[in-house]
Amino acid sequence: MIKDVLITPLDVFETTGGSVMHAMKNIDRGFVDFGEAYFSNINYNSVRAWKRHKKMTLNLVVPVGEIKFILFDNRNNEGEFQEVIISRSNYCRLTIPPMVWMGFQGLNKNGSTLLNIANIKHDPNEVDRIEIEKINYDWSIG
Amino acid sequence: MIKDVLITPLDVFETTGGSVMHAMKNIDRGFVDFGEAYFSNINYNSVRAWKRHKKMTLNLVVPVGEIKFILFDNRNNEGEFQEVIISRSNYCRLTIPPMVWMGFQGLNKNGSTLLNIANIKHDPNEVDRIEIEKINYDWSIG
Repeated sequence: MIKDVLITPLDVFETTGGSVMHAMKNIDRGFVDFGEAYFSNINYNSVRAWKRHKKMTLNLVVPVGEIKFILFDNRNNEGEFQEVIISRSNYCRLTIPPMVWMGFQGLNKNGSTLLNIANIKHDPNEVDRIEIEKINYDWSIG
Repeated sequence: MIKDVLITPLDVFETTGGSVMHAMKNIDRGFVDFGEAYFSNINYNSVRAWKRHKKMTLNLVVPVGEIKFILFDNRNNEGEFQEVIISRSNYCRLTIPPMVWMGFQGLNKNGSTLLNIANIKHDPNEVDRIEIEKINYDWSIG
């Protein structure tokens, strides 16, 4: 488990004609501030990697589909990986602190959607990006 | 148009293997504070109505499917309706101020999902609920 990464199970309630799924409250562990919330949609088997934020703490929830997140931490050592798969059936929030590399892949054939509740607004100057080959990870789906 | 209700078009960006869809920034019109974010899933043709919040401002986005929102304002007169249909193809944020009645209906056969970014955390004491028949509206789908 990478330092300061949190995986927080979230409640789902069945209700009239559907359900309610928690995402985040301002008193939750992992909440820093509210800067921006946005969605990312990812097609089956597509990968977006790698990205690292210098200031942003990411709080990620997957309301639709299934997404595999790969984290890579080389802050204090030669590098540590962590894999987290989130979906409505494993419904939880993934908190990623600044300076941890992150990539993700869609695992659902009909597409997947994540919500990021970020403590700061999007700012291209605080994002580092490197090409997928620069961190050695096998993204092929078994 | 009901007073203090806002409909704000939001940006969608195509990117590698999917897209990014804005939801809300802390500088946006309609943003009051961050208390809680949660999802509601609603099945096709199902209706959840009517609910009114005494303190909560709702900021609603529909990342998946299509939802019809019916607002009813009887704050200062005999009653005024407003209908708003939101989907990924009419992608916008609906801001509903306190004391306006609200109901919604799923219009997508595969289900629809809304995100509410609310200024306060869920509190049953600030919610008024009345039965669907109490406000006269024809929910049948054409």
